[in-house]
Amino acid sequence: MLYDKSPPQPPEDFKILKYEELLSFVKSIFVKLGVPEEDAFIVADNLVTADLRGIDSHGVARLRRYVDGLRKGAVKARPNIRVVSEGPSFALVDGDSGLGQVVGNFSMKLAIRKAKESGIGFVTTRMSNHYGIAGYYAMMALEHDMIGVSMTNSRPLVAHTGALGKWLGTNPIALAAPTKVPPPLVIDMATSVAPIGKMEEYSRLGKKAPLGWGIDSEGNLCDDPDKIMKEGALLPLGGLGELMGGHKGYGLALLVELFTSVLSGAAMLRDVGQTEAPKPANVGHFFMAIDVSRFMPLDEFKDRIEKLRAELKNAPLHPQFDRIWVHGEKSYLTSMKRMKEGVPIYKKVFEEMRNIAMELGISFPWE
Amino acid sequence: MLYDKSPPQPPEDFKILKYEELLSFVKSIFVKLGVPEEDAFIVADNLVTADLRGIDSHGVARLRRYVDGLRKGAVKARPNIRVVSEGPSFALVDGDSGLGQVVGNFSMKLAIRKAKESGIGFVTTRMSNHYGIAGYYAMMALEHDMIGVSMTNSRPLVAHTGALGKWLGTNPIALAAPTKVPPPLVIDMATSVAPIGKMEEYSRLGKKAPLGWGIDSEGNLCDDPDKIMKEGALLPLGGLGELMGGHKGYGLALLVELFTSVLSGAAMLRDVGQTEAPKPANVGHFFMAIDVSRFMPLDEFKDRIEKLRAELKNAPLHPQFDRIWVHGEKSYLTSMKRMKEGVPIYKKVFEEMRNIAMELGISFPWE
Repeated sequence: MLYDKSPPQPPEDFKILKYEELLSFVKSIFVKLGVPEEDAFIVADNLVTADLRGIDSHGVARLRRYVDGLRKGAVKARPNIRVVSEGPSFALVDGDSGLGQVVGNFSMKLAIRKAKESGIGFVTTRMSNHYGIAGYYAMMALEHDMIGVSMTNSRPLVAHTGALGKWLGTNPIALAAPTKVPPPLVIDMATSVAPIGKMEEYSRLGKKAPLGWGIDSEGNLCDDPDKIMKEGALLPLGGLGELMGGHKGYGLALLVELFTSVLSGAAMLRDVGQTEAPKPANVGHFFMAIDVSRFMPLDEFKDRIEKLRAELKNAPLHPQFDRIWVHGEKSYLTSMKRMKEGVPIYKKVFEEMRNIAMELGISFPWE
Repeated sequence: MLYDKSPPQPPEDFKILKYEELLSFVKSIFVKLGVPEEDAFIVADNLVTADLRGIDSHGVARLRRYVDGLRKGAVKARPNIRVVSEGPSFALVDGDSGLGQVVGNFSMKLAIRKAKESGIGFVTTRMSNHYGIAGYYAMMALEHDMIGVSMTNSRPLVAHTGALGKWLGTNPIALAAPTKVPPPLVIDMATSVAPIGKMEEYSRLGKKAPLGWGIDSEGNLCDDPDKIMKEGALLPLGGLGELMGGHKGYGLALLVELFTSVLSGAAMLRDVGQTEAPKPANVGHFFMAIDVSRFMPLDEFKDRIEKLRAELKNAPLHPQFDRIWVHGEKSYLTSMKRMKEGVPIYKKVFEEMRNIAMELGISFPWE
C-alpha cells in the first residue's frame, strides 16, 4: 500500500528529491559549518527522517535556523557534551549548546547503554537546542529491542488553561516499541491540539485553520493561522477551557516541562531560546530506554503487541472512517513511499537550500 | 480560600460526614471481609482521599464493587503479592488478585525503595484490581522528596479513533512533584475527554452531557450519558476523529496500555475484568519514583518548580476565566475544606454503606 500522510499540495509547488541525495547534501552543509563528519550525519539523518515520515515542518524546512544558529555561535559545532551526574540507571547530561540532534543522540545512546546494563535508562538533558522530531530518539531503542521514550520542551507557543499569550512549548511526547512485523509502534505527538508545523502549512496554503487550534491576542478562538502564530497562541490538547479537557493537555505539557527542564536545569517556559537567536536556547530533553527482556521473553512481548494491534485494527469501523490506524503506521507507509519515489520538498524550501549552498560555497546537487 | 471542586448538588441529596469517621468505617468493612488491618487502612485511606480531593466517583461510591469482588473471591483479601523479576532500578510485580490499593501500595513502595538506592524506580504490575485514584500512588513519592508517576489500565470504556464500541480503558496518567510550599504539583488525568465518573454524575443529575464526550452505538456524538455508557463509548482526549487531536488521546491510552499491561503480562483491552466479576480482573499498573536529589540539590529543584508555577499563575488572564490554576491546587483546596467541614456523600451511596454495614454485621457510626 502506498500512502502519504502529508501529500504535496499543490504538487506544482514541490520538487521531488532523491532521499540519498538529500541526505548527503544536508550532511555536507553541517560538515562545511565545522560539525564533525559523524555528527553531521546524525543531524542530516534526523532531518531527512522527518521529511521521509511526512513531518515536513521538522525536516529540511528548518535548515536555515540551524545554519544561522551555528554561524552566530549560539549553537556550537563542536560542543563538549558531558555527563554531569549518573548512576546505574540514570544520568544528567549538559549539551554545551551543541546541535539538539547531536546532544539528543548522545543522551539516548547513554539511556540505551544504561538500560542494557541495568534494565532502565533515564536521562534528562540541558543546554541543548531544537532536536527535530522526538520520535527519532524513541526509535533509536528499537534496534536494541527496547522501548524508547523521548520528550523535549520548546520555545513558548501554547496558552495554558485560563491564560492569554504563549507560555508553554508544544512539548512533544514520543514512544516507540518493537513489534514482530513492521512497522514498529511509534507515538510522536505534540501536547498541543495541533503542532506548529500544521499551522505553518495552513498559512503557506492560505487556508483557514480549524476553529479550536488556537486563539488570538484577546483569547477568542481564531481561524487565521498567521494571527494565531504572531499575536495569539496555540491551545493545549483538549482545547480552550476545561470542558473538553484543555487542562489535560496543559497538564501533559507540564509533565514534559518537569522531566525535560525543571529536573535538568534547562530553560523553562519563556526562557527557552530559539535556535537562531544570539544567546543559547538551553532547550531541555528527556530520554528513557527500557529493556523489554528484563520483564518477559522478547517474543512474548512482541506477540502481545501484535495481539493488541490486531484487536484495535479489527474493531468495528466508525462510519466516518475508512480504516483504523495504529500509531506508527502512517509515518512508516509515508517513508516507504518517499524512499521509493522521492521526497517532496516545497519549492521555497528548495530555494532556501540553494541559497545556503551558495552562501557556504558547497555544491548543490540539483543543477 | 475555601474551594470545592465538586460541590454537592443539590445539597439536600448529600450527607456531610466527618473525615475520621468515614475513614474508620471504611476500614472496618475491609477488616470484616478478612483484609489484614494494615491493608484495610490503605484501601480506606485511598478511597477517602478520593472523596476528600473531590474525585467522588473513585471514593466510597465504589465500595459495593470492592465488597462484592472480595465476597465472590475474584479479589483476594490476603494475596501473595510477589516480585517476579527485579534489578537495581526496576521490578515486575504479580499482585495475585489482591485489592488494587494493596497491590498498588506494595508496588509504589518498591519503586520508592529502588529510587532511594539507585535514583530511579520503575515498576510494572499485573494481576491487580481497580486501584482507585492514580494520583494517590504518585503522591506517595512526595514525603520522600521524589517525583512520583503512576498509570493504570482499566475496563474498556473508550472508542479509539476510527472505531465503534468500548476498547481502551480511561487509562489515567498521574504525576506528583514536591514543591517548596503546598500544594504539591499533582497531575491526575484520564486520557479520555472526560472520566467515567463525570458521566455517572451527569446521569445521576439527569443532565445532558456536553457533546464531544462520547458517542452512541452508531458513532454519533451523543449527549445522553446513559446511552454513552450503555451502548456507546467515551471518546479519547481530543475527541472524535483527528481534527482536534483525538488520535493523540488514543496514543496516550496506548502508551498507558504499554507500560501497565503489555510489559507486565496483565490483561489488555477487552480482557480487563471488573472488580465485582467472578473471574480475576488482572488489571495492570505502572509506577515510577525519581529521586530528585540525584539530579540537583532538592532546594534548587523546589525553587524551580515554584518559579514555573508563579510564571504560569501570573500570566495575563483570559477574559473567560477568573483565575489560572496549576495542577494539584483544586484537589488540595477541596481536601482542606472537606477535612474541616466534612465530606459530602451522596445519599444513595450513604444508603449503600448502611446496607453493607448491615450485611456484614458491623456498626454504622451515623445512627
